[in-house]
Amino acid sequence: MGIAMHGSDTLKQLARTATDTLKRGLNQHVRLAVTGLSQAGKTAFITSLTDQLLHGSPRHLPFFPVQAEGRFLGAREVPQPHPLLPRFRYRENLASLKAEPPQWGPSTAGISELRLHLKYKPDSGLRGFFGEPVTLVLDIVDYPGEWLLDLALLETDYASWSAQQRQLLSQAPRAALAGNWCVDAELFCQQGALDAVQTEQLAERYAGLLSDFRQQLGLYYLQPGRFLLPGELKGAPVLAFFPWLTEGGEDTALFKHLEKVFEQYKSEVVKRFYKNHFANIDRQVVLVDTLAALNHSRAAFLDLQLALTDILKSFQYGKSSLLSRLFSPQVDKVLFAATQADRLTPDQRPALSSLLSELISPALEPMRYAGIDVGVETLAAVCTTQAGSGQLDGENLPCLKGRLDDGRQVTLFPGDVPSSLPPSTFWQQQGFAFPAFAPPLGLNSPLPHLRMDKTLAFVLGDKLK
Amino acid sequence: MGIAMHGSDTLKQLARTATDTLKRGLNQHVRLAVTGLSQAGKTAFITSLTDQLLHGSPRHLPFFPVQAEGRFLGAREVPQPHPLLPRFRYRENLASLKAEPPQWGPSTAGISELRLHLKYKPDSGLRGFFGEPVTLVLDIVDYPGEWLLDLALLETDYASWSAQQRQLLSQAPRAALAGNWCVDAELFCQQGALDAVQTEQLAERYAGLLSDFRQQLGLYYLQPGRFLLPGELKGAPVLAFFPWLTEGGEDTALFKHLEKVFEQYKSEVVKRFYKNHFANIDRQVVLVDTLAALNHSRAAFLDLQLALTDILKSFQYGKSSLLSRLFSPQVDKVLFAATQADRLTPDQRPALSSLLSELISPALEPMRYAGIDVGVETLAAVCTTQAGSGQLDGENLPCLKGRLDDGRQVTLFPGDVPSSLPPSTFWQQQGFAFPAFAPPLGLNSPLPHLRMDKTLAFVLGDKLK
Repeated sequence: MGIAMHGSDTLKQLARTATDTLKRGLNQHVRLAVTGLSQAGKTAFITSLTDQLLHGSPRHLPFFPVQAEGRFLGAREVPQPHPLLPRFRYRENLASLKAEPPQWGPSTAGISELRLHLKYKPDSGLRGFFGEPVTLVLDIVDYPGEWLLDLALLETDYASWSAQQRQLLSQAPRAALAGNWCVDAELFCQQGALDAVQTEQLAERYAGLLSDFRQQLGLYYLQPGRFLLPGELKGAPVLAFFPWLTEGGEDTALFKHLEKVFEQYKSEVVKRFYKNHFANIDRQVVLVDTLAALNHSRAAFLDLQLALTDILKSFQYGKSSLLSRLFSPQVDKVLFAATQADRLTPDQRPALSSLLSELISPALEPMRYAGIDVGVETLAAVCTTQAGSGQLDGENLPCLKGRLDDGRQVTLFPGDVPSSLPPSTFWQQQGFAFPAFAPPLGLNSPLPHLRMDKTLAFVLGDKLK
Repeated sequence: MGIAMHGSDTLKQLARTATDTLKRGLNQHVRLAVTGLSQAGKTAFITSLTDQLLHGSPRHLPFFPVQAEGRFLGAREVPQPHPLLPRFRYRENLASLKAEPPQWGPSTAGISELRLHLKYKPDSGLRGFFGEPVTLVLDIVDYPGEWLLDLALLETDYASWSAQQRQLLSQAPRAALAGNWCVDAELFCQQGALDAVQTEQLAERYAGLLSDFRQQLGLYYLQPGRFLLPGELKGAPVLAFFPWLTEGGEDTALFKHLEKVFEQYKSEVVKRFYKNHFANIDRQVVLVDTLAALNHSRAAFLDLQLALTDILKSFQYGKSSLLSRLFSPQVDKVLFAATQADRLTPDQRPALSSLLSELISPALEPMRYAGIDVGVETLAAVCTTQAGSGQLDGENLPCLKGRLDDGRQVTLFPGDVPSSLPPSTFWQQQGFAFPAFAPPLGLNSPLPHLRMDKTLAFVLGDKLK
């Protein structure tokens, strides 16, 4: 009897161990990176995504299967495990959205991470067999899209990069602002003498120029990306370079110096970032503020397309490419999302979606060919408007109600989004003026959203089965 | 003849090589670190030191021997060699001092470096023998004194550190501000349960408390120092700890967690900083704003003494100490300098010097015993006043003319500095109000100074012989 009990205990113990091991094997870990060029809405997106996972319900997220099917048991935030990496400040961002007056959280200036444990009941298969809840560990990584633009530098050298930048700088729209800098830099390159002080000054002026391209011209394709958000590298020698501004002169001391710093930038800044943070990303969300580009100009829109095409190259790793060998990337899903769809009336959202597809089309096919599942979505991380209809010039038209930055409640007719990029004459004649809204008063968890459930379904659905 | 010439060439060549090798061996390299607790005037000091070296003259620096003896051939700034480390912005700081209206440069928020080549004629010995100019490579390293306070943490553990902080928090002057935080933290520690969110919140409130101690109480002894200037570590898990606020409880999950983070902070933040930047420092300047502490309160003055005593421990490496083994430090000269001596009339400067000596006296003897050459100086990096005398209440008294922050030109009678710390009744009755001056209009290189030549003589004199 003693032996029998002992035997039974041993069996139970064995079964428990086997189950534990299997469950551990089945528990999964997903690293989801979220990026987007400055002002695309990364902070609001991650705050809302986290909030939907922590406080969502089947009613609130009808298109997120694990919720809709009643299998989602809850989520909680746990400390992110990298001691030297800032935590993404979900709680603080939520608090500023709920404050009076409500405010958007601060914009992304560097990398940060957040870890969530998602507990759910598996629906089938081996996991379903045990009938016990499973935990998915989700790491959300926030970083500036500007840094992603630098990945392309790894596959080029200083001379080729300079030739490309020289061409961009000599054309509209950049040429309008770049004139003075180009004259000084060209003269300096022609002289070819190594002058550390002038090199630093021209590099800092170049950084200022990139920043002006962003602010004044609404441009996106700005390299090197760290020049725009240098963080603790501000003033470091590794940022003291700029494109070679003349033909020839590759044998001068100055060219060789700038080439050396360029290579140092690639290895010490770009490679290091990707090795530490990018190599083990499973899924990537790229946020795109299409409406801001439309509001600005045709040139801004085309520049956004150029930047996105370059960014997309990061994901088109051929088996033999340098990037593939460097990072052995494992990204299997990329979602492109047009943010702030709440600035449009609902009838216009399909056009926005089609416009985004046009934006990313140059790189879409090679990505799909590389076996990556690419999604396109239009969403609002935090819905700031109410859609309705109203009379305008005797016509009944769709309209939006919302709160402007100055606190005024307004009703607006934002107008139509073109489903394809209009010709430049369009901007000369009328252009676009899609309004920006402040967060609404009295926000609460779960945050109101547009299509965040579809977004969750695309990026996490298959991991929560 | 052909052979003879050849032989002669070879001999000449040999002699040249030998001379070059010897000269290279004689050319020296000094790493000079400059620190001081927040507002001590590090930026102004390094800007002026650099300016004196670049643009000084025998007349301007009569007590800097290499200048006075006409052996100084000049200096130039060369790029500092660490690609990822910010350059100290001498040129930009000088430009803001020369701007209209003139302004002080921005205060130190992290580490930065500057490299100068100093060319001089040796005065004697082997170097003098060759009669040729020698170059001294000078690296100036700027970093927040707050970080230096953390060095003491390496020789303590979480329990002992907590006990010390607990005592400080329970006494005047800290107790007045610490009440609420202490109540919450004590309760949390008594419960002993590991709650990540509450831990983070208490740690952030603790950082806020340290900042209040600095701003509102004028205190200096604030640990951990990185909490005050976190830079890119803001929000990182390694900063999510605070002192254990109750007796006992060392076996709880919370204590063990906080202890782990404390040790992580020591190894990942403190040790890393000292290993990368501190280990190879040759000379150290510690700037002390004695007048600000006097202006504030007796408590502020005593706290400054506590902080300096702790900082000084960094230099008292016994042969067997942990620090000695970790960093094999080679600091052979430390200069303590009371800054902003131009806020006093000249007759008061000896008293300031004597007061500074009193401040650092607790640690002075062991440092000298450890073989370190310790200097005490009173200086003004940029002299903002003109000394004179004027009538006050019918009496002829020393006075200062200068420009206040609001631009007004004033003549003031700043009064006497005590040569020893007065009793607390003194602050109750009258206290001190040494004025702060803005940089004067029309500044030019070399910057006007008080005793920067004496300072240079102490920190570099023996290296320029």
